Amino acid sequence: MAKLYRSSVSKTPVEPVSMDGADGVTVQWLLRKEHGVPNFEMRRFTVQKAGHTPYHKHEFEHEVYVMSGEGVLKEEGRESELHPEDVIYVPAGEMHQFRNAGDAPFVFMCLIPKSK
Amino acid sequence: MAKLYRSSVSKTPVEPVSMDGADGVTVQWLLRKEHGVPNFEMRRFTVQKAGHTPYHKHEFEHEVYVMSGEGVLKEEGRESELHPEDVIYVPAGEMHQFRNAGDAPFVFMCLIPKSK
Repeated sequence: MAKLYRSSVSKTPVEPVSMDGADGVTVQWLLRKEHGVPNFEMRRFTVQKAGHTPYHKHEFEHEVYVMSGEGVLKEEGRESELHPEDVIYVPAGEMHQFRNAGDAPFVFMCLIPKSK
Repeated sequence: MAKLYRSSVSKTPVEPVSMDGADGVTVQWLLRKEHGVPNFEMRRFTVQKAGHTPYHKHEFEHEVYVMSGEGVLKEEGRESELHPEDVIYVPAGEMHQFRNAGDAPFVFMCLIPKSK
């Protein structure tokens, strides 16, 4: 039976993102399938100064909420600023990259459908 | 075709939660099916001093992230404190209530699978 699960940012391991094209990025899997969630997973990313996620696309969407810091969203043919409390839906198949554009860490939530 | 969608907390309407058992609660639907999201929806709740969500259960899960303020999570037979950066997975079918336990607004993200 599914059970209520509690955690926090401070209790969640910080893992480097070693994917090609990522630089200065760590991830915390706050809620993932191992915690029992049935439909979608919650991750918190921290991008250090001058760091960035890969410029890439994939067959699942992102739902993003900017927590702190200043960033840039790169899409195909376009770049735009990101500020705290901004919200972004990146559909499956769209090129995207998140970059730190400030001096402080750039922190955002990024949720994805549960992997099979 | 699905398109990238950008918004922010300040651009999102604040709606009262008028459900029975809710008191002093507003919601902002940051990402919902009308924005094109295919699998899950992102809401931001604000609970005023002494306010609370309903003590209830339903047939879908919650994924919750506490943004600010101090709260209490009521489950069946148990109450526990909630602080910023806490994370909670409430499975479908589990009784739950979120209460403001402080003087400042209690603010949290609460994501749900997309309604049919």
